Amino acid sequence: MNDVAHRSFLDRLAQAVGRAQVLTDPQETAPYCTDWRRQYSARAECVVRPASADEVAQVVRLCAHEGVAVVPQGGNTGLCGGSVPTGTRREIVLSLARLNRIRDLDTLNNAITVEAGCVLASIQAAAQASGRLFPLSLGAEGSCQIGGNLSTNAGGVNVLRYGNAREQVLGLEVVLPDGRIWDGLRGLRKDNTGYDLKQLFLGAEGTLGVITAAVLKLHPQPAATATAWIAVEAPQRAVELLAALRARLGDRLTAFELVSRVCLDAVLARVPGTRDPLGAAHPWYVLAEVSDVGEPAALAASVERALTDSAESGEIRDATLAASEAQAAALWRLRETIPEAQFRNVKHDVSVPVSKVPALIDEASRAIERAFPGGVVYAFGHIGDGNIHYNVGASDPEANEALMRGRAAVNAVVYEVVAALGGSISAEHGLGQLKREEIRRHKDPLELELMRALKKALDPAGIMNPGKVI
Amino acid sequence: MNDVAHRSFLDRLAQAVGRAQVLTDPQETAPYCTDWRRQYSARAECVVRPASADEVAQVVRLCAHEGVAVVPQGGNTGLCGGSVPTGTRREIVLSLARLNRIRDLDTLNNAITVEAGCVLASIQAAAQASGRLFPLSLGAEGSCQIGGNLSTNAGGVNVLRYGNAREQVLGLEVVLPDGRIWDGLRGLRKDNTGYDLKQLFLGAEGTLGVITAAVLKLHPQPAATATAWIAVEAPQRAVELLAALRARLGDRLTAFELVSRVCLDAVLARVPGTRDPLGAAHPWYVLAEVSDVGEPAALAASVERALTDSAESGEIRDATLAASEAQAAALWRLRETIPEAQFRNVKHDVSVPVSKVPALIDEASRAIERAFPGGVVYAFGHIGDGNIHYNVGASDPEANEALMRGRAAVNAVVYEVVAALGGSISAEHGLGQLKREEIRRHKDPLELELMRALKKALDPAGIMNPGKVI
Repeated sequence: MNDVAHRSFLDRLAQAVGRAQVLTDPQETAPYCTDWRRQYSARAECVVRPASADEVAQVVRLCAHEGVAVVPQGGNTGLCGGSVPTGTRREIVLSLARLNRIRDLDTLNNAITVEAGCVLASIQAAAQASGRLFPLSLGAEGSCQIGGNLSTNAGGVNVLRYGNAREQVLGLEVVLPDGRIWDGLRGLRKDNTGYDLKQLFLGAEGTLGVITAAVLKLHPQPAATATAWIAVEAPQRAVELLAALRARLGDRLTAFELVSRVCLDAVLARVPGTRDPLGAAHPWYVLAEVSDVGEPAALAASVERALTDSAESGEIRDATLAASEAQAAALWRLRETIPEAQFRNVKHDVSVPVSKVPALIDEASRAIERAFPGGVVYAFGHIGDGNIHYNVGASDPEANEALMRGRAAVNAVVYEVVAALGGSISAEHGLGQLKREEIRRHKDPLELELMRALKKALDPAGIMNPGKVI
Repeated sequence: MNDVAHRSFLDRLAQAVGRAQVLTDPQETAPYCTDWRRQYSARAECVVRPASADEVAQVVRLCAHEGVAVVPQGGNTGLCGGSVPTGTRREIVLSLARLNRIRDLDTLNNAITVEAGCVLASIQAAAQASGRLFPLSLGAEGSCQIGGNLSTNAGGVNVLRYGNAREQVLGLEVVLPDGRIWDGLRGLRKDNTGYDLKQLFLGAEGTLGVITAAVLKLHPQPAATATAWIAVEAPQRAVELLAALRARLGDRLTAFELVSRVCLDAVLARVPGTRDPLGAAHPWYVLAEVSDVGEPAALAASVERALTDSAESGEIRDATLAASEAQAAALWRLRETIPEAQFRNVKHDVSVPVSKVPALIDEASRAIERAFPGGVVYAFGHIGDGNIHYNVGASDPEANEALMRGRAAVNAVVYEVVAALGGSISAEHGLGQLKREEIRRHKDPLELELMRALKKALDPAGIMNPGKVI
């Protein structure tokens, strides 16, 4: 790049957002240029931190004019390298962190209008303060930002009841690749006046435009929550239990998470202060959460009856119901610390129809055992959504590192099983840089062609987050 | 059109679908060429009735080759002329009625795979036979087809709890404008491997491709339903009651419909066998339906307690809870026969944020009274979704016909109020031919530009349902 042109570009960016918000010092820009898992790292020309949609629009216009790529970034907690530069061309990181106002909260419309840089937990808190629930909930909620959640169509633990991030959205404000602002910030539950444009930008990982604000749905705040830790013989029993509990408890069932004994052992060994909630060891567990308006005691009683019946009919091996919020938190901790308890291994975020999860786990585990004898499978996750985090490591550290180096071969074994079951190789984490190549092997060429047609229609110059998704 | 070319085209269509399924006799084609409200009628070159996605693909390929427009049609129950020919160019009607198989029902995945021509009620029945609920429900359910429901993103009475048609869909099979088949029939609850292509075709009214099959979500089948007819002072009270009931009953509240006294009077006068459920007259009513798994008696008791409390605090004027299924059906009949009880007048299907419905009704009614003294407003509909059917007529038949002839002026008055409140001029009925011109006055030009860019990217030759939507 030409140095004079570069300086003049920085000057114009500084005019748009203020000099202090154009970061070029490598020490300042470093946190923006490396992803959370430290798998991707590349220099950007600068990091720009606008404070409003108008400033975002000015920055994008300048980039479009200059042919500089725009890498939108929220909390930078993504797992696929979607929010950091690629280092392959002129790029800036566009941080949305300063667009962090809650613009409106309308309790009668059950809707909240937020800017892209709002931290997810702050939106949950604002909803709760108004007696409402914003149900999107995931591990990174204390630092991830809603713009990133929407751009990756985040999942999390409440999808069973409330759906993915996409389903929380009533309206969007988006800066388009040419720097124009599309104001689609409508709080309507029904609007059939043409193509639903907001759907394009949700889950597009910033490749079609920059989400700057959103109107999100709120729900009634549950007054009662019951949390159960349930031991089952096998994943098939978990799937049948899900159907049985939904028949009895309906949509009160808000989370239904699978944990293998291998995962629990890793947590018990490596996470301080954890203990096995049940007296004996079991091969598989379900962490179920049930919530409702109304009396906590009534809810707990109905969950207890359902579990007692399931135990008597032999569907489950054992179960315990949290007797306090502290106990419930301890159960959730067993689930939520699984990622840190088995941090270094070959990760897969896959989904199949819920009915096919048992086949996925059986067949993939047999295939892994054949291809990588001694491989250890850590299977856990949102079985209620058919979404399993299926990670493969080895007990011996050297063997584990060898697996990590040869991860492509491990991926291939797992993805082959997933494909045969009609599944997806990225259930909730997106594609980013990590799976951009991989997806070409798995996706129908016609689908890739349609995606490219959309990209070309909306971002003909290709400046929005290039090198990600497609 | 050249007669020889026309006959050769018909021959090739006949080769694709069988001679008996290419209708050209005006008596046979007439029902396909006029819309349900008899507002739009035009000749098509023929009506083609394929029996499979492959046959649809062959037909579309032939039309693409010949430059003939394709008008996809399901049950032809739409209210905006979206499923009939325009008469402005060479067109065929593509009836999906023979694609009427239920391909799969997976209770453990809570999903059903259906072809586009399945009648909505048949899908509801198949779900129910498996102990599941398919929640999409609307007046035309006995004859409308799911392909049309999805293409118009249909609403109906259960949107409050379950969302619009769009939200029922896990996967789609679509014949693209060039005749290729996109197989997106996945039963996954999470799949973040790129742009969510199915969203393009949902609600596109057949202008981007032909939906031939879908994987739809199923829900637990409620075992208990409580139906209440509630009198309130004003729409504002209805909106507040909605918030109060949701706080107490959560998402058990599945329907929340507004009915004005004017509408009830029209029903009582013109629909045989109807009677006022309450002793005295009231200005506004809410028909609320609450449903749940579990004991019917417990549900009825909790609804009764909620209504008693609301009555004691003066939030509502009176209420009655249906004591039997027959009574519940009678209450629903009061709501569902409103369209036939006031068939000939100037109709609007509008939405605003739920919190703005009272302002919509107040302000529009004042504006109508000013502009058309003596005008009678029939306001009713899905207030829980912010969606009001706001129809304007006159008691005097001649004055009513004058209003009908000058409907554009009535539209203008109502739409101005809707626009000022950030609303939509087509909440659940779509645009079709009826509102295609109108929408240009109301929609942001940037939004129309984006819609045209999508249309051009997917259907560059413009053969899919031209003259509709954009």
